[in-house]
Amino acid sequence: MEMINTYTRSFDELREAFELSIEKFTDFPESPKGLNEPIKYIMEIGGKRIRPLLVLLACDIYKGEFQEALKPALAIEMFHNFTLMHDDIMDEAPLRRGVPTVHNKYNVNTAILSGDVMLIYAYRLLEGLSGDKFKKIFDVFNEAAIKVCEGQQFDMNFEDETEVEIEAYLKMIELKTAVLLGCSLQVGAIVGGASNEDVNKLYEFGKNVGVAFQLQDDILDTFGDEKSFGKQIGGDILQNKKTYLLLKTRELASEEDRAVIDDWFSREEFDPKEKIATITEIYNKYNILDLGNDLKHQYTEQAFTDLNETSLSDAQKEPLNQIANKLLKRVS
Amino acid sequence: MEMINTYTRSFDELREAFELSIEKFTDFPESPKGLNEPIKYIMEIGGKRIRPLLVLLACDIYKGEFQEALKPALAIEMFHNFTLMHDDIMDEAPLRRGVPTVHNKYNVNTAILSGDVMLIYAYRLLEGLSGDKFKKIFDVFNEAAIKVCEGQQFDMNFEDETEVEIEAYLKMIELKTAVLLGCSLQVGAIVGGASNEDVNKLYEFGKNVGVAFQLQDDILDTFGDEKSFGKQIGGDILQNKKTYLLLKTRELASEEDRAVIDDWFSREEFDPKEKIATITEIYNKYNILDLGNDLKHQYTEQAFTDLNETSLSDAQKEPLNQIANKLLKRVS
Repeated sequence: MEMINTYTRSFDELREAFELSIEKFTDFPESPKGLNEPIKYIMEIGGKRIRPLLVLLACDIYKGEFQEALKPALAIEMFHNFTLMHDDIMDEAPLRRGVPTVHNKYNVNTAILSGDVMLIYAYRLLEGLSGDKFKKIFDVFNEAAIKVCEGQQFDMNFEDETEVEIEAYLKMIELKTAVLLGCSLQVGAIVGGASNEDVNKLYEFGKNVGVAFQLQDDILDTFGDEKSFGKQIGGDILQNKKTYLLLKTRELASEEDRAVIDDWFSREEFDPKEKIATITEIYNKYNILDLGNDLKHQYTEQAFTDLNETSLSDAQKEPLNQIANKLLKRVS
Repeated sequence: MEMINTYTRSFDELREAFELSIEKFTDFPESPKGLNEPIKYIMEIGGKRIRPLLVLLACDIYKGEFQEALKPALAIEMFHNFTLMHDDIMDEAPLRRGVPTVHNKYNVNTAILSGDVMLIYAYRLLEGLSGDKFKKIFDVFNEAAIKVCEGQQFDMNFEDETEVEIEAYLKMIELKTAVLLGCSLQVGAIVGGASNEDVNKLYEFGKNVGVAFQLQDDILDTFGDEKSFGKQIGGDILQNKKTYLLLKTRELASEEDRAVIDDWFSREEFDPKEKIATITEIYNKYNILDLGNDLKHQYTEQAFTDLNETSLSDAQKEPLNQIANKLLKRVS
């Protein structure tokens, strides 16, 4: 992201400070062999570092010392990567960001135990915080962490369920993905000294941005451009994933079209291109791209309403506006 | 344990209060299905509840309100059961305390995710503590939790290593088992208002009792009485476990005897009774029962030295003496 933060510190400056703090605070002992190496490995695969950036930004706009937020930012990123490490086991995913997942590169036991200790390290990174902020951050972190686990459980349960309500799906992506974005802003805002009202509003803002982002991800997976999306188009369709697009289409579709969808989703062998083309055609028949974008925009609007209800000035809101817009207006 | 606590509250009273607090504080939501049910399951299998009892006792003897220590005690027991749930996956253990392990009764993914959320619940149980105590307990809990993971990693690594030093083995059982006993006393003592010096000494006491207890467990597994030990005698030998008995014997044994041991340990098929008898005979040749008991007694003595270095009166020490003696003088 090459954006200009017109308010205080630039995104690049914050991100650079964060990357340095990873190096500094993940200098774990080499013994016992096998425990900490996978942590360095998954942390170094990288990713967009959205969550820690949100922590640092939120701290910065309240004129908090962003350095004070580096460890909490790393705690959130460490927690996030712990969930990736364990989710990848559960999903039997061979690759993450183009490289072997931890259980694939090492083994399942290593991914379980290294993940466990990552979660503890995440908590330990909160140790340095001062009394009142520490308690608040500890509470919001616990709550978010539990919700993320609940989201993963719902997601796994949905795989075995034939009928998933759209409301339940939206709740699932809220828990699994969006809550931690909200929590990142909460944590940063608490470090920065924000009022409880602002902390809560920023949570809602981040959460709604997160749901909108996940809906966008669902949309791009089918309707995106392979190059800018960075993943194979139609992956969700091939994996029978119960996305908003599928659930909404099944809700709207004629009995006949629903039967076609269910037939394709039950086939063990098929031509991938044909499956993607057929399902996408049915999606188009029910105008699902527009419906998906509408819903995404509802969440986006709610997010900006939440942001506007904080005590922040326009100048303070600007970096959050920028990062949300960047996240939600990816080239499709 | 039907012991009389001559100091303050009886063990039975504390244990009963603890069991009630499990019911009270593990009333987790039923949704998402599959996440919390295994937690109730493993918590209800029971066990001796040694760790929470140590928490409550330590609080009680400093004249702390033991009720204040119930949630921290549950946090420790919750953490302990989280490690059991994940260790059982890694060890592919089908049974625990005679009933199916969680990954066996449900599935591996459930055991991973329910274990993860247990670890978070353990932390959340610390939320109610007041400022200064909270920070101290958070720190000692983090440190112990990391060490327990390190111990499990060492234990897994040892399985693949041909030569394990006795020192490394003792370090492993310290980390995997003993540290959490020490931490239990620390946590209780902090809640009870003990001085930092006493907190540290009680940690050492608990840790040394823990190592002695594990050595005793190794000894009883080979030399115990099946009925009072409660497990099959010779299990460690059948599973090629690198216990103190084995490592010390291999160190002392003639080349010939070591070859016999290594031969038995390399066989894929064997008569279990013959294997146990042969290995036990070699153990006896090198007087390993006495050596094991000697080492156990060294740790036990060190433990009581640590206890005597606290500021506690004899009457205050009495329940800790009792519980340690009970743990370390099981009928063999």
